[in-house]
Amino acid sequence: MAAIPSSERLRSALAEFVAIPSVSLDPARAGDMRDAADWLAAQLAFANGRVVESDGHPVVLGERIVADDAPTLLVYGHYDVQPPGDETAWQTPPFEPSIRDGRLYGRGATDDKGPVVVALEASRASEGVNLRFLFEGEEEVGSPSLPRFLAEHRDELAADLVVSADGAMWRASEPSIAIAAKGLLGLDVEVDGPASDLHSGRHGGAVLNPNHALAEIVASLHNGNGRVAVPGFYDEVTELSADDRDALRRIDFDDESYRRETGAPLLHGEPSYSTLERLWTRPTLEVNELRGGGAFTVIPSRAAAHITCRLVPDQDPDRVFAAITSHITRVAPPAVRVSVVEQPGAVPAYAIASDHAAVVAAVGALGTVYDEEPLLVRIGGTFPAAVLFERHLGLKTLLFSFSTADENLHAPNEFFRLSRLDEGVAAWSELFRRLAR
Amino acid sequence: MAAIPSSERLRSALAEFVAIPSVSLDPARAGDMRDAADWLAAQLAFANGRVVESDGHPVVLGERIVADDAPTLLVYGHYDVQPPGDETAWQTPPFEPSIRDGRLYGRGATDDKGPVVVALEASRASEGVNLRFLFEGEEEVGSPSLPRFLAEHRDELAADLVVSADGAMWRASEPSIAIAAKGLLGLDVEVDGPASDLHSGRHGGAVLNPNHALAEIVASLHNGNGRVAVPGFYDEVTELSADDRDALRRIDFDDESYRRETGAPLLHGEPSYSTLERLWTRPTLEVNELRGGGAFTVIPSRAAAHITCRLVPDQDPDRVFAAITSHITRVAPPAVRVSVVEQPGAVPAYAIASDHAAVVAAVGALGTVYDEEPLLVRIGGTFPAAVLFERHLGLKTLLFSFSTADENLHAPNEFFRLSRLDEGVAAWSELFRRLAR
Repeated sequence: MAAIPSSERLRSALAEFVAIPSVSLDPARAGDMRDAADWLAAQLAFANGRVVESDGHPVVLGERIVADDAPTLLVYGHYDVQPPGDETAWQTPPFEPSIRDGRLYGRGATDDKGPVVVALEASRASEGVNLRFLFEGEEEVGSPSLPRFLAEHRDELAADLVVSADGAMWRASEPSIAIAAKGLLGLDVEVDGPASDLHSGRHGGAVLNPNHALAEIVASLHNGNGRVAVPGFYDEVTELSADDRDALRRIDFDDESYRRETGAPLLHGEPSYSTLERLWTRPTLEVNELRGGGAFTVIPSRAAAHITCRLVPDQDPDRVFAAITSHITRVAPPAVRVSVVEQPGAVPAYAIASDHAAVVAAVGALGTVYDEEPLLVRIGGTFPAAVLFERHLGLKTLLFSFSTADENLHAPNEFFRLSRLDEGVAAWSELFRRLAR
Repeated sequence: MAAIPSSERLRSALAEFVAIPSVSLDPARAGDMRDAADWLAAQLAFANGRVVESDGHPVVLGERIVADDAPTLLVYGHYDVQPPGDETAWQTPPFEPSIRDGRLYGRGATDDKGPVVVALEASRASEGVNLRFLFEGEEEVGSPSLPRFLAEHRDELAADLVVSADGAMWRASEPSIAIAAKGLLGLDVEVDGPASDLHSGRHGGAVLNPNHALAEIVASLHNGNGRVAVPGFYDEVTELSADDRDALRRIDFDDESYRRETGAPLLHGEPSYSTLERLWTRPTLEVNELRGGGAFTVIPSRAAAHITCRLVPDQDPDRVFAAITSHITRVAPPAVRVSVVEQPGAVPAYAIASDHAAVVAAVGALGTVYDEEPLLVRIGGTFPAAVLFERHLGLKTLLFSFSTADENLHAPNEFFRLSRLDEGVAAWSELFRRLAR
């Protein structure tokens, strides 16, 4: 083993891991899921790695306790991956890892197998910290079995901090630590009018078209300037402090470059907040889907919208749902029936203080590996596992991932920058040293 | 032949005709379309029936000229039918005619094969009128070849009046003549935002979601009371005269029965018009389809609506389209791109005066067959052929159909009331006698 350079060994390990099509969503892949869990447990041989049943896909656990008085870290990641989607859009097959231009391409390369390989390698050589490991197989399907698993394995998972290999650096130009992730609330609005689809010639003008009612409801959810118009929506939102705004203002972010990246004609959103403030710190309400009728002469019986809100710290998903329901009920025209149903699995926002010892250690560790100053960033997406660790284990989570947000997560041609392997191992090792003190 | 009662002969003819699956939309049915045209031409042997090519499915023509100074009627109908749709929803197969409870079930039984059989039978025995015949095979696909066919066969089709076997009586409780049909204008609105679908967590709050913009646009098309809010939409609409309103008010129409029939919680529409006035005499704008994104965390790149307007006499489809386009362009938010595209085939409304000699004759003819007083009604649907006859041949069209609007046109289990066969032949014969004078 010693003859093989570590970077080459890591590449081989990552390629082996990516070649296992561990798609948690696909029932036909149950055997591959088990193979991926077994592979991980074998990698964790140094920490008594083992596959443990859960209500869904198995969980891989492990631990290496070096001293009673050393801090204990719970290393988190996941071995499941997104479905490959349209395979014709892939330049090389999703489960045949392929290296091009210093990147390893394949489904799961960056989410989350590359970062998991980094964490394992650094853990193997760690000193001065007790390590426990939890790798789940249901992250890509909303971690349905994780809450109960955590509750039932509370003692085995006791620790001082979770360090997550999942998450992603904001962009490739400098290292970053995410100190906040937004919460998520999903809901469905359904508008029912006539008992069945009606001919728009025979019945037009006599009944309220559910498409019209839905448009009226949806249009009432925002002001023209992009601010959410639901009374109470912002009630629990703490305004940014002057310091927070200063910190955000110091981050190099060019609106016009960002606009070009999205392809939108103009940027748009709440007045008196910068684009970065809106992206990172303001709650949103997005209508993901409008659906009603068809391109023929019909007054549909029903129209529907799917909505997701991204929540910020202190917003309670239940209270936000109640505010939206109450608003919709108030504006809904009486000539239709309207229902609002909450999706299961709402998650509040997650945050860790920017001066938390783990964050300070992480910034320091990144400083030993990268020349660029590490940024403290916030994620518009949601990180449910961190909320679950806080809720069920009472632990804060440090997001210390070496994935980068531009690496086609959940898209064709997902890749992982191979330079992140050695950088990641160096940074994790330094993090362990700093946390061991 | 004389030994077979006429009603039995008519039933057999109708069953033969319905058994030919002449679905104009289905390219695989081209041979059946030809068979149906040949069948019709054979039925028209008494009038030199023949199949004539058009740009699309063939047209069946015929004529029987009895006297130079007799009035000439152009009898119109169509031999094509709608696709059967979901065949499992049919109690008996759509192209195996089946008689139950005095009704003949099968695709096309009422639209338009039953009424065509009636017209043929009455024509065969007619006296004192010159008859020409035009049966098209593209009515169910929007009659795309008919305009050019009419222009190119103008002389062969010269007449004083079109009598249409197509159309439908309003309801079964009394006979009716439709004196107006609304026009149709279809258009598509497309809202484009970001260049591709965006993750609603990563980008929410920074760009305008096309679903939000579309809802704002659609909501702006109506006032809360159901009146169309597009400036200029009603400009060319002639208000009903006091006499018109009186005539409509005398028609027995119960709002609550109608509401129950639709299943809508409440009826809804322009204030200060009765439900029947709205259905029959007011133009409408219905959003048939809303479509954008999906039930996941996406900000879609695009959202779209399909809209159809039903127009009343004197509204010009082009001017209405221009008014809608101008309104949408004005209300569209600048952070998205919006396009409005007119569907081909817009049709203005059609109307014939209630005191037109043909209408008077038709009402008189119905009076000799039915005890109930015939109603003059208006159709919320569209009758493009009548507009084309007026435009290309300069002829008014009398809608003299023995179909009834409740006979599952375009739906599973389409049927034709067999009692309408003899009633229809008697009424057509009487109509011919009255028009011959």
